[in-house]
Amino acid sequence: MSGLLHQAVGVHLLGDLAGIASEKLVDPAAIEALLRNSALACGATILHSHFHSFGPGQGVTGVVLLAESHISIHTWPELGFAAVDIFMCGEANPLRALELIQSTLAAQRCVLQTIERGGAHPGKAP
Amino acid sequence: MSGLLHQAVGVHLLGDLAGIASEKLVDPAAIEALLRNSALACGATILHSHFHSFGPGQGVTGVVLLAESHISIHTWPELGFAAVDIFMCGEANPLRALELIQSTLAAQRCVLQTIERGGAHPGKAP
Repeated sequence: MSGLLHQAVGVHLLGDLAGIASEKLVDPAAIEALLRNSALACGATILHSHFHSFGPGQGVTGVVLLAESHISIHTWPELGFAAVDIFMCGEANPLRALELIQSTLAAQRCVLQTIERGGAHPGKAP
Repeated sequence: MSGLLHQAVGVHLLGDLAGIASEKLVDPAAIEALLRNSALACGATILHSHFHSFGPGQGVTGVVLLAESHISIHTWPELGFAAVDIFMCGEANPLRALELIQSTLAAQRCVLQTIERGGAHPGKAP
């Protein structure tokens, strides 16, 4: 097993997007459509999606489950901020999804962390 | 806004769990119950959950959406491996959820990465 785990099972992008107009962060239907489109733009296969609004003018939280893992978003319109996760296995290209989300939300800044999952890290206790 | 973003909006744990018996990684109902219980153990509020099986003896992918963000899991029974994300804002303690998941799955190893979201990183293009 450890030999297999020396190859990552997938790439996980954590994108912290800031400088977003608050009105772009409050509509669950629009954000769901954006995340579904971003999954399809990567060539991923959608299994399920669910998006929740915390109320008029409030943040949105949601996820698109993929055959290749998931895309999630949590928004803070009062901060102009969205936390996006894109975890994809296989041939799908997660960076394409992040670029589409960043450009559609017109985010001024993105702090991106790219993490290989299931890679060649030595096991250790948490 | 940048002043507010100098405080993290939440903590994101990425747990790569290895050395798990394959039969613990294939039952979507059992894994959904585990993740829901782990959310409640942290004091989090569940909004929605959805779990998918890729077929008998195959992996499971699923998510629990929280008022505090989300917990997700993707399993590879053929590798004895599960990728767990726990992203929580507010007062909830995500490490408690990870410990419950690791102990219930009897994972032999956990590679944990702890990432502050929305923290004091300088903005940069992706």
